[in-house]
Amino acid sequence: MSSPSLPKDQNAQVIERDGVITLKRIPVPQPSPTQVLVKIHFSGVCHTDLHATDGDWPLPRKTPVVGGHEGAGTVVAKGSLVDDSSLKIGDAVGIKWLNSSCLDCSFCVRGDESLCPRAELSGYTVDGTFQEYAVADAKHVARLLDGDKTDFAALAPVLCAGLTVYKGLKESGVRAGEQVVIVGAGGGLGSIAIQYARAMGLHVIAVDGGAEKGESCKKLGAASYVDFMTSKSVVEDVRTASGRERLGPHAVLLLAPSEGPFRQATEYVRAHGTVVLIAMPAGAKLTMPVFDTVVRMVTVKGSYVGSREDTAEAVEFFRRGLIHAPYKVVGMSELQGVFDAMKANKVVGRYVLDTSK
Amino acid sequence: MSSPSLPKDQNAQVIERDGVITLKRIPVPQPSPTQVLVKIHFSGVCHTDLHATDGDWPLPRKTPVVGGHEGAGTVVAKGSLVDDSSLKIGDAVGIKWLNSSCLDCSFCVRGDESLCPRAELSGYTVDGTFQEYAVADAKHVARLLDGDKTDFAALAPVLCAGLTVYKGLKESGVRAGEQVVIVGAGGGLGSIAIQYARAMGLHVIAVDGGAEKGESCKKLGAASYVDFMTSKSVVEDVRTASGRERLGPHAVLLLAPSEGPFRQATEYVRAHGTVVLIAMPAGAKLTMPVFDTVVRMVTVKGSYVGSREDTAEAVEFFRRGLIHAPYKVVGMSELQGVFDAMKANKVVGRYVLDTSK
Amino acid sequence: MSSPSLPKDQNAQVIERDGVITLKRIPVPQPSPTQVLVKIHFSGVCHTDLHATDGDWPLPRKTPVVGGHEGAGTVVAKGSLVDDSSLKIGDAVGIKWLNSSCLDCSFCVRGDESLCPRAELSGYTVDGTFQEYAVADAKHVARLLDGDKTDFAALAPVLCAGLTVYKGLKESGVRAGEQVVIVGAGGGLGSIAIQYARAMGLHVIAVDGGAEKGESCKKLGAASYVDFMTSKSVVEDVRTASGRERLGPHAVLLLAPSEGPFRQATEYVRAHGTVVLIAMPAGAKLTMPVFDTVVRMVTVKGSYVGSREDTAEAVEFFRRGLIHAPYKVVGMSELQGVFDAMKANKVVGRYVLDTSK
Amino acid sequence: MSSPSLPKDQNAQVIERDGVITLKRIPVPQPSPTQVLVKIHFSGVCHTDLHATDGDWPLPRKTPVVGGHEGAGTVVAKGSLVDDSSLKIGDAVGIKWLNSSCLDCSFCVRGDESLCPRAELSGYTVDGTFQEYAVADAKHVARLLDGDKTDFAALAPVLCAGLTVYKGLKESGVRAGEQVVIVGAGGGLGSIAIQYARAMGLHVIAVDGGAEKGESCKKLGAASYVDFMTSKSVVEDVRTASGRERLGPHAVLLLAPSEGPFRQATEYVRAHGTVVLIAMPAGAKLTMPVFDTVVRMVTVKGSYVGSREDTAEAVEFFRRGLIHAPYKVVGMSELQGVFDAMKANKVVGRYVLDTSK
Repeated sequence: MSSPSLPKDQNAQVIERDGVITLKRIPVPQPSPTQVLVKIHFSGVCHTDLHATDGDWPLPRKTPVVGGHEGAGTVVAKGSLVDDSSLKIGDAVGIKWLNSSCLDCSFCVRGDESLCPRAELSGYTVDGTFQEYAVADAKHVARLLDGDKTDFAALAPVLCAGLTVYKGLKESGVRAGEQVVIVGAGGGLGSIAIQYARAMGLHVIAVDGGAEKGESCKKLGAASYVDFMTSKSVVEDVRTASGRERLGPHAVLLLAPSEGPFRQATEYVRAHGTVVLIAMPAGAKLTMPVFDTVVRMVTVKGSYVGSREDTAEAVEFFRRGLIHAPYKVVGMSELQGVFDAMKANKVVGRYVLDTSK
Repeated sequence: MSSPSLPKDQNAQVIERDGVITLKRIPVPQPSPTQVLVKIHFSGVCHTDLHATDGDWPLPRKTPVVGGHEGAGTVVAKGSLVDDSSLKIGDAVGIKWLNSSCLDCSFCVRGDESLCPRAELSGYTVDGTFQEYAVADAKHVARLLDGDKTDFAALAPVLCAGLTVYKGLKESGVRAGEQVVIVGAGGGLGSIAIQYARAMGLHVIAVDGGAEKGESCKKLGAASYVDFMTSKSVVEDVRTASGRERLGPHAVLLLAPSEGPFRQATEYVRAHGTVVLIAMPAGAKLTMPVFDTVVRMVTVKGSYVGSREDTAEAVEFFRRGLIHAPYKVVGMSELQGVFDAMKANKVVGRYVLDTSK
Repeated sequence: MSSPSLPKDQNAQVIERDGVITLKRIPVPQPSPTQVLVKIHFSGVCHTDLHATDGDWPLPRKTPVVGGHEGAGTVVAKGSLVDDSSLKIGDAVGIKWLNSSCLDCSFCVRGDESLCPRAELSGYTVDGTFQEYAVADAKHVARLLDGDKTDFAALAPVLCAGLTVYKGLKESGVRAGEQVVIVGAGGGLGSIAIQYARAMGLHVIAVDGGAEKGESCKKLGAASYVDFMTSKSVVEDVRTASGRERLGPHAVLLLAPSEGPFRQATEYVRAHGTVVLIAMPAGAKLTMPVFDTVVRMVTVKGSYVGSREDTAEAVEFFRRGLIHAPYKVVGMSELQGVFDAMKANKVVGRYVLDTSK
Repeated sequence: MSSPSLPKDQNAQVIERDGVITLKRIPVPQPSPTQVLVKIHFSGVCHTDLHATDGDWPLPRKTPVVGGHEGAGTVVAKGSLVDDSSLKIGDAVGIKWLNSSCLDCSFCVRGDESLCPRAELSGYTVDGTFQEYAVADAKHVARLLDGDKTDFAALAPVLCAGLTVYKGLKESGVRAGEQVVIVGAGGGLGSIAIQYARAMGLHVIAVDGGAEKGESCKKLGAASYVDFMTSKSVVEDVRTASGRERLGPHAVLLLAPSEGPFRQATEYVRAHGTVVLIAMPAGAKLTMPVFDTVVRMVTVKGSYVGSREDTAEAVEFFRRGLIHAPYKVVGMSELQGVFDAMKANKVVGRYVLDTSK
């Protein structure tokens, strides 16, 4: 059940040991009975790929491993147990961070696949999407639904960045019409977060630094912008932006959790509101005051990627034309340069790799 | 609209300045048009009364103020606007921490009265229940429903201790059949928490120190007990108690939030589970690791008393005979001795004051 | 606590007996201690006003009674217990169907004020808003927040039509990104429902009759339109509009529940989806098949106006400029003509009465 | 991966054509790569088996087919893709109505596997559990967790009857402490429903006919009993049983939906309450009045078996000793007699077949 013309070898970016990722020729993998083989057209580059390369997370990773976990492409071969009512050759699909999970543990059966103790992670515990052809579990690949009309390059960042912020917004528990603060709204994740929040009917207060980011946030749909570089008090300014009663926003998305912004968030969030932590800086700790947390009934919670249901929903917003994550395409061979730029904090939006170059 | 025989003066325990509470004769108050006057039969003594007396919370309090906020009694007079379809002379009612709230702000209209910026607090911002006759907002007094058959002394602790742990269990989001750890299960709050958790169909894992507390926890309905005084690893023992898969409990009630038990709770709580902070030690802070919180999607939230709906529910469990908070009745004049015992950590269960003595 | 210049008498449209509403001079009412007196600038005309006039509902109504329950205006006097932190003279407010409720029954304490057994209904059990000055409970009037800048005429229909469809969408349980069918989307309620659904991030499939209505629905934001006048099968066409998988919409709003459209809705709604019944035709009955309801886990539920929280949310969407209910202003003296047009089904959008004319 | 000693042939009860079920020798099936082969120790007999045999449901069924869908037993062989972290030889498992589903459609990914369009049904579209050895999808068999200590006969009815009423209670949305009416509480489903409701912290009002059933309901934990054979008004009596305010119960479980009890339920259920329809009489229809449904915000919903998560939860209540469904064991060869007794309405509790006899 595969296209006749599959090559034997291909290009791939392989993490060989901590800190070293290399473009190599490796064999094209074979799908197991429950997997599909996907021709990856484009693969986004995420901060997680840096952590995977550097090996600085307290989460075991295999080496060598092909990096990447935001791959959009086309099914070119299927395992023997993948029937056509599930996936067909030619279907447009996405491979994401969660390459597979057991689908029968206590977490999987309630739709919390990302918490599955037997989950496999693309570009981390199994080979990922920085290659021309990648395998993934047929039940886990994202259905992109539009076949060849799919804009694969634009879609790639939705599969991780989009999914992550969408899940964070869901986990926040806010309902349409309520207010959410996005801290780090001017960055790559932030830009997408603003768009998802708007598409969900939320009122967005953006927080970031600098006038340029402010303009970009407002263009993307933020109702107001608080510039931490010029604000005398971020707490007071967010409260003011939250309306005449100054009750604070119903939720806060903290896109790069660190001590100062966290403390502000727990202060300005509305009583009975929620602060959601996204992204996973290795080793960071946050401190919360008990009295205020209790008396104001504040919730702090972590949110981590999303389930297959979340993915389908995140993709659907994209399909309806509501999400335009800014991105720039470069050849897969240029990955190291992209990493260098990311480390130097010189990246606006998302880099997307063309695996054919 | 009042009984003919109301006295002019009465006994009351009055907080006069930080640290000083005194038994005095004061006038019996008059209800405003929207209040009722309640003959207080019994009033529980809560740790919050210690904080109110000592004035060590970062929350403004008036002085002099009559203490107390767990008062059970009978309506003896009503303001002109309190009609009989709301409350009748002779109705059994409870006066609780929330003496009144505005009922029209953004919090009140969604049933979050305890977050109302205009809330008045019994025994703190307005006179409380350490007196023979107390006034409270007619819309806020708890309806006890059973008239003279009410066991007022047994009911008193439900109005604050019971409500607080019941609300915490509701806020934890656990459903019947799921597991909850109660940290501090052998104390006053803990004993009531075990009973509410059982009445709600939860599976209780109790954590406290000492064999005697363990036995008492199991008698009250805990399925298992982890003794932090003898356990080699509370985290491992709680996981084992949570079942063959060792996934940890769905929620944790932390009845006296402090650093060590909090760190353990965030470690052993099930992924996507919730740690609820109850009680408000002045000045305490808690530290949480970002990576683990995000990747395991842990929620930490504060819970603070409860609404009128929560109160009615908490009372209903009591009425059905499911809650037996251990308590000991003493005369109101003995309050200082009770405070001394509480400060010396010598109290098991709850002291309840007989206001007539 | 009232403006000095209040007149003694005023114009009002009074329902005197079944079927008869008359313009009369009546006294300006006085607010009770817990009420406000509102200068009504504009009052919308709703189908409920027809039922109130005709007296054809199985719900007791008083006579004579001033009609109307969609009044927008300004506070001009307050009862003695209404303090400035609640409402000030000059505040822009709305009087809605729910004129007051007890705020302490089992329904009120959980935010279900419209189910309060002691609720008073404007223009039905108490005098309504078809008069120049009307009283209402201070805790129940809608806060419009923008003072004199409020567009009172445009706001009036939000207070009942807007609130009703918004509440129906909330009760449907759909989340942002999901699909809702609005049956009767081209009518007055339907036009507003499309806008609320869009503002809430929902994907709207409109159902109504005729090409003209189809165009208007799409202009308001519907993603697709099914014309029951030309469709060979409404069920098949809605399924097709629901996406490639043809699973049907997550929810259906049935704005004028009758047998045929109801049967179609229970057929095309997605499994585990919800059909919401809005509006209350006197005497109508609906029939549902048990087998299909069970095996597809379909929910059917009624939705009836909304709470104070719902009202604040519905008004907030309007304030943000997301709701433009089409309306036409006429003098209050022309009410009978409006009723005649409504009975003849000749009304597109909402009539709004200028009480000064 | 199978025990060495598996026989080639076995006994089975096979539905050959409408109305005819026959004990036959048939081959022991082989598991596919993703299935397990289960030695069925006991299999409950359910009304659905009657419908399967009679072929009177509007749902296509295959013939010949081995009947049965409440089978409890032990894994004796596994397909090549079922690894030990999922299931081991010797594990105690249950085969239920849902034999398999695709696990990747829009319903499966949100835990609504019973709504999967590709679901296979035991004893209906694929061979069921009225045989000594049955196959089922490894990801769908219920984990019974206790190995050989499992009381397989007692557990069998939990796998369908228990699951169905537990799911109905979950779908009703009631919370611990709230009231549920169980209509048909004295029957087989009803007895189990009372026990689940109690285990979930609900207050149960039982409705059925006759004093004997009343006693049995109260013994199982119902707080009160309304006997429709002697009650002058079931509606009034249920309201009275619901408490001093007579607001009616928060939910109703209608275990055998028919017109009269349904009409009563929609009348006595509390405003904003829910009536859940369970069981699927072929061809039955129910009629609801629109006005009352809307103005009282009543919800009517169907509930149909449950997901894998629901199953695990239902089994867990059983494991904790909270569910004792009355049952009687007979040999599998006696099935026709059981069917006859069921048709004659002479069955109290559940019949469970010993497949070895």
